[in-house]
Amino acid sequence: MKRRDFFKNGILTTLGLGAFGSYPTLAANHRNNGIAKNIIFLVSDGMSSGTLNMADILMRHKYGKPSTWINLYETNQVKRALMETASANSFVTDSAAAGSAWGGGIRVRNGALNIGPNGERPVPILQKFKSMGKAVGCVTSVQITHATPASFCVNNGSRNAMPEIAEDYLRLRFDVMLGGGANYFSPERREDKRDLFEAYRQTGFDLVRNTKELQQTKGDKPIMGIFADEGLPYAIDRINDPGLKETVPSLAEMTTKALDILKNKPNGFVMQVEGGKVDWAAHGNDAPALLYDQLDFDESVKVAMDFAINNGDTLVIMTTDHGNSNPGLFYSNQANKNFERLYETKASNEWVLNQIEPSFTSGRVRDLFMEYQKIPLKNEEVEAILASYKVGDDGLYNPSNLPFHQLAGLQSSYTSIQWAGTNHSADHVELAMYGPGSEKLKGFVRNYELHNFMLEAVGAERNLFL
Amino acid sequence: MKRRDFFKNGILTTLGLGAFGSYPTLAANHRNNGIAKNIIFLVSDGMSSGTLNMADILMRHKYGKPSTWINLYETNQVKRALMETASANSFVTDSAAAGSAWGGGIRVRNGALNIGPNGERPVPILQKFKSMGKAVGCVTSVQITHATPASFCVNNGSRNAMPEIAEDYLRLRFDVMLGGGANYFSPERREDKRDLFEAYRQTGFDLVRNTKELQQTKGDKPIMGIFADEGLPYAIDRINDPGLKETVPSLAEMTTKALDILKNKPNGFVMQVEGGKVDWAAHGNDAPALLYDQLDFDESVKVAMDFAINNGDTLVIMTTDHGNSNPGLFYSNQANKNFERLYETKASNEWVLNQIEPSFTSGRVRDLFMEYQKIPLKNEEVEAILASYKVGDDGLYNPSNLPFHQLAGLQSSYTSIQWAGTNHSADHVELAMYGPGSEKLKGFVRNYELHNFMLEAVGAERNLFL
Repeated sequence: MKRRDFFKNGILTTLGLGAFGSYPTLAANHRNNGIAKNIIFLVSDGMSSGTLNMADILMRHKYGKPSTWINLYETNQVKRALMETASANSFVTDSAAAGSAWGGGIRVRNGALNIGPNGERPVPILQKFKSMGKAVGCVTSVQITHATPASFCVNNGSRNAMPEIAEDYLRLRFDVMLGGGANYFSPERREDKRDLFEAYRQTGFDLVRNTKELQQTKGDKPIMGIFADEGLPYAIDRINDPGLKETVPSLAEMTTKALDILKNKPNGFVMQVEGGKVDWAAHGNDAPALLYDQLDFDESVKVAMDFAINNGDTLVIMTTDHGNSNPGLFYSNQANKNFERLYETKASNEWVLNQIEPSFTSGRVRDLFMEYQKIPLKNEEVEAILASYKVGDDGLYNPSNLPFHQLAGLQSSYTSIQWAGTNHSADHVELAMYGPGSEKLKGFVRNYELHNFMLEAVGAERNLFL
Repeated sequence: MKRRDFFKNGILTTLGLGAFGSYPTLAANHRNNGIAKNIIFLVSDGMSSGTLNMADILMRHKYGKPSTWINLYETNQVKRALMETASANSFVTDSAAAGSAWGGGIRVRNGALNIGPNGERPVPILQKFKSMGKAVGCVTSVQITHATPASFCVNNGSRNAMPEIAEDYLRLRFDVMLGGGANYFSPERREDKRDLFEAYRQTGFDLVRNTKELQQTKGDKPIMGIFADEGLPYAIDRINDPGLKETVPSLAEMTTKALDILKNKPNGFVMQVEGGKVDWAAHGNDAPALLYDQLDFDESVKVAMDFAINNGDTLVIMTTDHGNSNPGLFYSNQANKNFERLYETKASNEWVLNQIEPSFTSGRVRDLFMEYQKIPLKNEEVEAILASYKVGDDGLYNPSNLPFHQLAGLQSSYTSIQWAGTNHSADHVELAMYGPGSEKLKGFVRNYELHNFMLEAVGAERNLFL
């Protein structure tokens, strides 16, 4: 059976219930009875303890105010827990399994999207909420078809099936889907040559491709917003490129627009917001990318909290799916001065490394790092980086083979930021909540427990879905 | 002025108050009025997020039950916060400055013990509590004169002044002081040849040097217990050495005995318990040492909690002073199987490395790692380790130069445990509380705020001490 057919024959269908069929809708306004009308679920993907810490230091010392996340702790506005993040087959999860724990309520093997180790096919949580009459959506800085948003939306044996997931979304008709991933919609890039963009347009979606078009949407049609071929640019690179800044929305801007649309839905809404490139930056040991994307995420937390505080019946959840690379600001006599270089940085490591060509002189490479990152690399360090820009047999340099890890190792002595690896860790992670239902949060939870927690927060009978 | 004189001329003296002078003592029993009679302050020194996480995984999967610390979260028994750990001169603290923040209520420069950046000399918190009539003490797995216990007891410009601190304790006559550090008391090892052991005996202390002597103390005299020349053995090495197991107490055993004595004091007690070798293990990237010392600490948390639950008027605080090396269990197809090697390990890296001599064959070294750690090092890995055992010009090998970091790098592929460095990190850290006063804990605190927090928890007028 094809994965598409799996999806079509999901549990809802098995039970004789159409995807958005016959569940009673919830009352329109639950204010003051302890039931949430809306849920905003914010995920800083791959956020280790040190990521939250360093972003807060950066906020306080560069901008003179705390990060929203830490400030919520400081002002006692949220309930807080540690969350265990294991998957069905490992102490260390990937984003698909972690997202499926939330999205499907069971632990699945790494790589799977809401397909259990024994073939279970739990109904993804946004399908459940849609069935209840709620508006639903996802906002992300990576592909909208990527593991974390997909884990709230679809069943698929593999997170890599992004072209299929792009088709699933066409059928699901969720209210607001914003992110990257044009390559999975475009006829030029899809193996089957199908023009999904056209399919979205023809079936009544608002298909938007840049900030201006996004701003013009009114929310009278389902919105599919795709702003990059794969992931969106890192926040630090977007801010420093006037063209990008105008045409590609930030995570906070997408969150603001999504809320503007969803807040008008009569039965409330459930939305996932993912700072997906925090995870990518951690994999790349890319400190400027990591910290400024975490701050873009933090601004999205502020957008959500401002809405929830005014609104009164919105549960806000902020968390991460797993640690990644366990970075930290490390002890040295120069730790503060070194870290201050991050206040002035103007580009991610990825951006700088992409400027370099095999033909560059050492001086030119050194100048690049000084100009964009205030990092005075020594000659031998520059030479070591340049040495990895080798021209292949085809006479071309392979730009997908950038020396991320090597650069991070050299940078550490200039920034005092160090990394324990380039992949996920089993660390228990931060989880915090605001609003109706948050009072029920225990001090320690397992990731899959959040599924029923969300259903109960809105007053849904969770057994309906078992 | 000598540091000893600094101490003698501390603020209490300046104010015309003798060290244990004229403050009114507190009522003997505060049960049920929201005031704590006792405080147990537990510090797992240098505990990064991953340390707590991996120790919990080890407990659950090797012993079939959760760690006490995580179980307290899971069962909602404690109030929890994140703590910022900066020192006066750095985002990244050392243990002296972190301890002084708690012990003196102000931030000091790294390396100082309750001497502020402008020469401030706050009265160390155990002196304050002693003045109120409370019994006080410290229990640690490192030298009793080391930074963390000393930060609750003395003022000194340098944490390195351990010989002086050993003399300070003679004058302070605290009720129970248990740890290592014989080298700072012994006439053979002190530069001034003074026999502090004899001085303790002659001035009415119970001086105890092994487990049996510790068990025989009755608490009718102040107790100074010194069980090792420097730090105590790592828990994993102590357990696996019948001689050590009989003569050297574990941290949990010391904590139990200290509580047995302190619980009978009429005005209550304040005690610090430090898992000091958790920090040393992190500096050494020594995974077996780290995890089993964290579990010894966790058992001490259980001892404290069992007492507090029965007792009703004890505030238990559990935390760490800073992150260290940000270890984590990292993603790999073999992460679970690799981590399981830790279930069977019988020795710390330090112990194994200390068995090796330059003359050893590769086979013998390989066998050592298999026998004690179930780690099947490859020939080239064994050779790399052996190569660092070089005989010096004097014909001898320098055993203080063991290849800790190199071994940890090789081990990672067998344990899936990785490290971001060998020093402290700025990460915000775990802080949890149980008992009277804990309800006032905010979600985010700065380390120095705990000083007044503790004073207020016992109902002391903090301004008395400013």
